[in-house]
Amino acid sequence: MAAVVAAVEVIGPTLPEEQGQILEIANATAVFNREELGTVDELLADYYRDADASGYYFLSYRDGRRVLGFAVWGPRSLAGRGYDLYWVATHPAAQRRGVARRLLAEVEGRVRARGGGWLWVETSSTPAYAAARACYARCGYRRLAELDDFYGDGDGLVVYAKRI
Amino acid sequence: MAAVVAAVEVIGPTLPEEQGQILEIANATAVFNREELGTVDELLADYYRDADASGYYFLSYRDGRRVLGFAVWGPRSLAGRGYDLYWVATHPAAQRRGVARRLLAEVEGRVRARGGGWLWVETSSTPAYAAARACYARCGYRRLAELDDFYGDGDGLVVYAKRI
Repeated sequence: MAAVVAAVEVIGPTLPEEQGQILEIANATAVFNREELGTVDELLADYYRDADASGYYFLSYRDGRRVLGFAVWGPRSLAGRGYDLYWVATHPAAQRRGVARRLLAEVEGRVRARGGGWLWVETSSTPAYAAARACYARCGYRRLAELDDFYGDGDGLVVYAKRI
Repeated sequence: MAAVVAAVEVIGPTLPEEQGQILEIANATAVFNREELGTVDELLADYYRDADASGYYFLSYRDGRRVLGFAVWGPRSLAGRGYDLYWVATHPAAQRRGVARRLLAEVEGRVRARGGGWLWVETSSTPAYAAARACYARCGYRRLAELDDFYGDGDGLVVYAKRI
């Protein structure tokens, strides 16, 4: 009797063989600029080498073997119980399915398990990040401040935080 | 005729021979914990090696040849026009003389000269930092948020920012 295996969507630490898919998603979302794409690439290499030493943890959201989204988080330096959510990105073809929401919940669980108290998010005020901002608000993140023209003309910083 | 030289208080980049005085001030203020003291030491070494590569700039406030206070600032990573003020510290014997205020003004001038748009400050909510918080408020920094228990029980994060 052949086993019937349903495709299961699961989240777990990003695997070495997923490097190409992570970078492809970062590219495809079109909200990473060139400098940020380079940074994702560097941090991913550091994470593969030694995640704890790097301080950057990558999580993949998978549908079977395809990666649909990823999140990057880690402890804030000298910040006690504060953790940073650096990025959450979903492949454009997989948006509006709750991928980012479930990645956030997974990050929160991991922060909680380490005794963390706060998750901190910095994002952009531009229209390209409207879906991201809406997601943070829906997921219980408090909008703390908006600083105009922080990243560039017309591109402000929006800060969110959530008590874990 | 002997020249009469008045002691002049000046601010400038921290010099190699001031390492001991900087660490002494950090120790004496009693607001740096052990982890932070180690970080100041490391960052100072990086700054001496190559300030631009380190991204941390140390400024000394001097009364003649004695250092009375110091500030550490630098560009926020991936943050366009955003700059961080990491620390401002005044020797306990030199407090209430405007040392921190003048160090802040110097940092702001240097950030402005580099095209910076915002200076960002994270500090603690505890009584030990009350003078620092009052100084930021007096110097035009906007209090953006307070996150309870961020650094530890009863030790919250207070965030300030100032448009430069």
